[in-house]
Amino acid sequence: MAKPTVGALTGFPEWLPHQRMVEQELMDRIRRRYELHGYVPVETRSVEPLETLLKKGATDKEIYVLRRLHAEEEADSSGLGLHFDLTIPFARYVQQFKNDLTFPFKRYQIQRVWRGERPQDGRFREFYQADADVIGMNNLPVWWDVEMTMLMREVLDDLPIPTVSIQVNNRKILEGFYRALGIADLSATLRTMDKLDKLGPAKTLAELEAVNGLSGAAAQRCLDLASISGSDLDVLRRIEALGYTDPLLQEGLSEMELVLRETASLPAGRVVANLRIARGLDYYTGVVYEGVMEGHEQLGSVCSGGRYDNLASVGKDKLPGIGVSIGLSRILGRLFGRDKLSMSRKSPTCVLVALATEETRSDARAAAEALRNRGIATEVFDRPLKWGDQIKYADAKGIPYVWFPAGGERAEHEVRDLRTRSQSAVDLATWAPEESVLRPAIVRTEG
Amino acid sequence: MAKPTVGALTGFPEWLPHQRMVEQELMDRIRRRYELHGYVPVETRSVEPLETLLKKGATDKEIYVLRRLHAEEEADSSGLGLHFDLTIPFARYVQQFKNDLTFPFKRYQIQRVWRGERPQDGRFREFYQADADVIGMNNLPVWWDVEMTMLMREVLDDLPIPTVSIQVNNRKILEGFYRALGIADLSATLRTMDKLDKLGPAKTLAELEAVNGLSGAAAQRCLDLASISGSDLDVLRRIEALGYTDPLLQEGLSEMELVLRETASLPAGRVVANLRIARGLDYYTGVVYEGVMEGHEQLGSVCSGGRYDNLASVGKDKLPGIGVSIGLSRILGRLFGRDKLSMSRKSPTCVLVALATEETRSDARAAAEALRNRGIATEVFDRPLKWGDQIKYADAKGIPYVWFPAGGERAEHEVRDLRTRSQSAVDLATWAPEESVLRPAIVRTEG
Repeated sequence: MAKPTVGALTGFPEWLPHQRMVEQELMDRIRRRYELHGYVPVETRSVEPLETLLKKGATDKEIYVLRRLHAEEEADSSGLGLHFDLTIPFARYVQQFKNDLTFPFKRYQIQRVWRGERPQDGRFREFYQADADVIGMNNLPVWWDVEMTMLMREVLDDLPIPTVSIQVNNRKILEGFYRALGIADLSATLRTMDKLDKLGPAKTLAELEAVNGLSGAAAQRCLDLASISGSDLDVLRRIEALGYTDPLLQEGLSEMELVLRETASLPAGRVVANLRIARGLDYYTGVVYEGVMEGHEQLGSVCSGGRYDNLASVGKDKLPGIGVSIGLSRILGRLFGRDKLSMSRKSPTCVLVALATEETRSDARAAAEALRNRGIATEVFDRPLKWGDQIKYADAKGIPYVWFPAGGERAEHEVRDLRTRSQSAVDLATWAPEESVLRPAIVRTEG
Repeated sequence: MAKPTVGALTGFPEWLPHQRMVEQELMDRIRRRYELHGYVPVETRSVEPLETLLKKGATDKEIYVLRRLHAEEEADSSGLGLHFDLTIPFARYVQQFKNDLTFPFKRYQIQRVWRGERPQDGRFREFYQADADVIGMNNLPVWWDVEMTMLMREVLDDLPIPTVSIQVNNRKILEGFYRALGIADLSATLRTMDKLDKLGPAKTLAELEAVNGLSGAAAQRCLDLASISGSDLDVLRRIEALGYTDPLLQEGLSEMELVLRETASLPAGRVVANLRIARGLDYYTGVVYEGVMEGHEQLGSVCSGGRYDNLASVGKDKLPGIGVSIGLSRILGRLFGRDKLSMSRKSPTCVLVALATEETRSDARAAAEALRNRGIATEVFDRPLKWGDQIKYADAKGIPYVWFPAGGERAEHEVRDLRTRSQSAVDLATWAPEESVLRPAIVRTEG
C-alpha cells in the first residue's frame, strides 16, 4: 500500500491499481460463489432516511448525514444519512419491493458502507462489505443456520487469504441464560458482554454490576458462560452444567446443536462454538457469527452476521432473515499493508505493440486490433520513442510481451518475450501468449 | 422498473434483482473491453475535500456535504463532499500516487457519483458512471483524441442498447473562434453556449448580449458556428468559410480533422462533428464528446468527455489527460422504464433441487453440491412442501430445471425441464443443462 502524504484522508483507503485488481478478483470469486448457490445480486441506494438508520437500535454507529451545499432553504440536513451496513437497507428494500420478489428471497450485495468512527487499524470510515442474506415470508426454517454457515465457509475457503475461523453463538442461549439468571434488561447486558474482549473480565464484571445492575454472582455467571468454546457437542453439556434452564435457552441449545452436528466433518477450528460472541447490533435474534483470520486475531472480526426475525417484518408480514457479511476492506487493508497479497503484474495488458514511426501507426493499430479480437489484452505505445524506452514502459507494468509489427522496413511480425528477452518472427493470426500470462494472477505470500 | 410508493426516494434509483443482473452484465462488458485495451481498474474514495470539488470550476453542481451525526464539536460539516464525477477524484489520485504509476497511465473506473440536483427524467441524485481516462506525464499526443473516440465507439457498440451517436467538438475551435470575434470572457461565453439546447436560439442570443456583453453580430456568429455539424471534412471548410482566423482555432481544426479522417470508415452517424457541443465543465481544453442514443435524443447525453490539459497538473508536473464517461444509470433507467432491457430469468439458479422430506435433506444437499462442483448454479428448496409448491417457486424465478434426487423411495435421480414439463431419470455425474440456459441472458426488446 502506497503511503502518500498529500491528499490522503484517514479512514478512506484507496488502493493502487494492482491492488484494485486483487480486490476485483476477490469480489468476482465471492460473486461467483454466491451465484452458484442461487443468490441474486442487489444493490441499494447509498442513503437512507435517518429514522430508518436509527430506529433499528444501531445507536452506536456514527452516521454521516448529507446536506446539499447550495440548499440554503434546508435547515441543517436533508434527513438522509449514508448507510453503515447493508442489512438495514436490504431489509427496507425487501419491505419495499416485496410484491416483486419470490420468497425465500436470497440475495448478495457487495457495496460500500460508511461509518464516522475514529479510524484505526482495520477500522475505516468507508469500506466494502460483501453480504449474503435470505429472507423468508413468515417462515425461515432453522436449517438456514447450517446453510449460511456452510456458505460462508465455502466463500472464505475460496479466497486467497489466511484461514478464517467461524465463531458461532446463539442469542437465544445468551438471552435465555440471562433471563434464567433473573436479569431484567437483556439488550443492555448483551451490549456490555459484547465489550468483553475490549474491556477484559474485571472491567466487564464491574460494568455488569454498576451499569446493568447485576449481582456479583450473576455477573460472574455471565462470564462463566462466555468462557465456553469448542467445536464439538461437549460445548452444549458444559452450558447445561452451569445449571440454568429456560425455554429460550433450550431452543438456542438445540439450534446450536444442529449447526455443530452438521459442521462436525469440517477440519478442526473451521466452525467453533464461542459463547462470548454477542454482536453489538440489537436486531439479531438467533444464531450469530464472527470470523477471525488466523494470525490476525487482533484485527477483530473479518466477517459477521446472524439471524434476525424482525428486522424486515412490516405490518402483518413477518419477514425473518439470516445473513453474513464479509469485511472485504478490512481483510485487504491488512493483507496489502503486510505485503501478503499482490498481482503478478500491474496491468491487464498482455502485449504492448511498439510504435516504430508515425507512418507505421496504422500497422501497429491493426496488429493490436487483431490480437484483441482473439481476447488478448493489447495496447499500442503512444509515441515512436526508442525501442528501449518502449520496452522500459512494458517492464515497469510487467507486460510480458512486446510486439514489433510488420510494416515499414520490417517484413515480418516479431514478438519479444520480456521474461526471457528472446525475440522471434511470428504469425499474427496464430500466435498466442503462454496461457499462464494471458491474464494477471493473484500472488499470495503465505504467513 | 417497479414503482413502489413506500420507501422510495426520488433521484435515488434502485433496480429489481433481474435489472441489477442486467446492470452487472453491462458493467462486465465495459470492464472487459477497457481491460482488453490495457486500462487498469481504479476506484477512488467517494469523498473529496470541498475545496478540491469546488476549485475546478464545477460550481454549477450541487454537492452533498457530509457531517457526522454525533460530532457536535464539528461546526457545520466535515469539509468533505461526495464526488459529483470521477474525473476530478481521478486527477487528484494521479497527483497523489504519481510516483507509483507508469505514464501514460490508462485507467477505467466504474463507480457511483452524487449530485444534489433537482431529479428529473434521466437526472438522478445517485448514479453510476463508467469512465476511461489516460493521463500522460508532460505530454499526451493528439493521437489519443482518435484512440479515445474509437474506444468509446467499441464499448458502446458492445452494449445491448440503441446505437449511440458520438458528437465531437473541440474547445480550441470554440475558444479560438470566440477570441477572433474579440470576446473577452471565453469561459462565460462557453457556459452560455452550453445552454443552447435548453434555451433555444433566441434566448441564447439575448443572454450572449445581456450577460456576456457580446455585440448582436458577434452573438449571431457564435450561433452560426454552433449550427455546423456533419461527419466529413466539409465541416472544416464550413467553419473556415465563416471567415475568422486565430492560431488556437487553426489548432482545433487540425485536431478535429485527424478525428474525422480516422473515423471516416465507420457507418454513417457513428461519429459526427457537432459545433454546438460545449460541455459545461471548465476543465476541458481540446476535444469534447457527447453521445446521444438513437430514439432517445431527449434524454440528453449518455456519454461525455474530452481532453483536459491542466486538471491533473501539479507544481512543475504537467499531467494532460483525456477521458470519456458513460452514463450507465441514465441509460439503464430509460431502458428499464420502457421495458427494453431485461433478463431471461430472475435468478442465476439453473437447477432447483426439490426436497421430499426432512430425512432426505442430505441427499438433496449432496446432489446440489455435485452440480455446483460442475459449475451449475443450484439451490435446494428449504422445506418439504408439496411438489407443486416447489415447482411454483422455480417457475416464479424462471429456473429451468427441478431436480428430484435419488434417496428415500426414489431409486434414481430425475430432472424435470420446466420449459417442456418433461421429466426423466438422469445420471448425477454426467447430466448437463442445455448450454443456452446454464446462465441467465440479457433479453433486449428493440425499438
